[in-house]
Amino acid sequence: MSRCWVDGIEIDAVMADDRGLNYADGAFETLRCAQGRIECYALHRDRLAKALQVLRFEGAASIAKQIFEAVRGHLAGVKHSGPARLTVTRGSGPRGYCPPSNSNPRYVLSTATAAEAPDEPVRCGVSTVFWAEQPQLAGLKLLARTEQVLAAHEAMEKGWDDAMMLDSNGLVISSSRGNVFALCGNEFVTPSLSRCGIAGTRRQLLMERVLPELGFGVSERDISLQEMLSAEGVVISNAIRGIQPVLALNDRTYHLSALPIEAIKAALQEHVDACVD
Amino acid sequence: MSRCWVDGIEIDAVMADDRGLNYADGAFETLRCAQGRIECYALHRDRLAKALQVLRFEGAASIAKQIFEAVRGHLAGVKHSGPARLTVTRGSGPRGYCPPSNSNPRYVLSTATAAEAPDEPVRCGVSTVFWAEQPQLAGLKLLARTEQVLAAHEAMEKGWDDAMMLDSNGLVISSSRGNVFALCGNEFVTPSLSRCGIAGTRRQLLMERVLPELGFGVSERDISLQEMLSAEGVVISNAIRGIQPVLALNDRTYHLSALPIEAIKAALQEHVDACVD
Repeated sequence: MSRCWVDGIEIDAVMADDRGLNYADGAFETLRCAQGRIECYALHRDRLAKALQVLRFEGAASIAKQIFEAVRGHLAGVKHSGPARLTVTRGSGPRGYCPPSNSNPRYVLSTATAAEAPDEPVRCGVSTVFWAEQPQLAGLKLLARTEQVLAAHEAMEKGWDDAMMLDSNGLVISSSRGNVFALCGNEFVTPSLSRCGIAGTRRQLLMERVLPELGFGVSERDISLQEMLSAEGVVISNAIRGIQPVLALNDRTYHLSALPIEAIKAALQEHVDACVD
Repeated sequence: MSRCWVDGIEIDAVMADDRGLNYADGAFETLRCAQGRIECYALHRDRLAKALQVLRFEGAASIAKQIFEAVRGHLAGVKHSGPARLTVTRGSGPRGYCPPSNSNPRYVLSTATAAEAPDEPVRCGVSTVFWAEQPQLAGLKLLARTEQVLAAHEAMEKGWDDAMMLDSNGLVISSSRGNVFALCGNEFVTPSLSRCGIAGTRRQLLMERVLPELGFGVSERDISLQEMLSAEGVVISNAIRGIQPVLALNDRTYHLSALPIEAIKAALQEHVDACVD
């Protein structure tokens, strides 16, 4: 059963004057929980804090800390396992873009049952929807997600499992729902997210810990679609599914045996387990 | 008193699983009403239809038409005068970017009391927040408004009345809350909105009717900050305030006498009155 709390009260509605609804004035985190505990707790909390900071929430770090502590309590109380979503908005406000000076941030926490077959290989097409470049907001998981919604919709319509998304220069940024890593030689290349995209928690673990420990080089840089098509293999990472190998991208089929998927999965899970809170 | 309806029922809350809140998956219109009637009814309805079409709502035009008819009924029923906001979202949905195939759009209509001194001359600074370029979504009034929120916040912090917003190439796009027109010789220049920005209903009336009828040329094209600073005068337009002259932009002070403000206001109001419904 899915449950929902708003500012600590179990209720499944928010005020219609919420600025998250009206202006996408907020951020969110998609959490995976194991028996009431939050995986990658600090990584999620810190990314939320960064988003609130960029949105100019007063006391962003302290708000993120307090909300995460409350959220931990709720999830522990119901011993939730599976996905959860934490949304933090600037709260209610009158008409107008300018945040009210006395704004009270609001949080919404909701749990969901786990998706089935989360880590099967996926067939991708390339979305016709581009990521807009906005270095001032890049990397953050803000509420404004129109491009990914449209790319996911396109994937559904075209029968793809997921959509690869480029920027307007033809550089790969992400899939509609995760970060991407391409194996080129003995190195995993993951797109630079300095102009757009969301910097995932699992991406960070893969870059900083998992892949180096498995002996791979990791390069965070621009990567063209052409280069990704000629990579030996590609994986998609996100908080819920961990990593998924890409089976096909457009007409290109990858040999799944080129990727040590099971080793990466096991090492990632080990690191995730080490930062549960 | 402000009132609020959700899908026709007078209530001031929405479901927490609303995709407008969770992914900014929707669009809105800011309406000005006169004794229960909506100014520029068809322009607002058609812009909403266009936004829903780009967001791939099934039957976008028909949804916009039906919702606008319902909204007209609510506003007439309470004889509302002043601002109102109509938000249309993809409705409730489970976790995940992809819109559910059986999605039911939701609308939220709220009224507000009129702002005071709506058309006073404004002092502007230039925002440090840029408009991201996204031609696929340009011109639409989607829920995702982070950049304008941050620009309006910056204006408040710096003591400006409004903030002029540029794209990353230094071209002027809009103010934080309206479209802009710069008087250059006998011509009004308004920024091209093919890459970003919101195409306002009053902007359309000014471009197509009001300014030509007053004998001005109108040019929709790129305009640099430098060119705007050297213009004879600048006005900001939006649905609530009509037009406001810009008194100052950074250190540049404009002579308000260079602009036939009262003539433009009167002609705009005449056209607005002609398309009330």
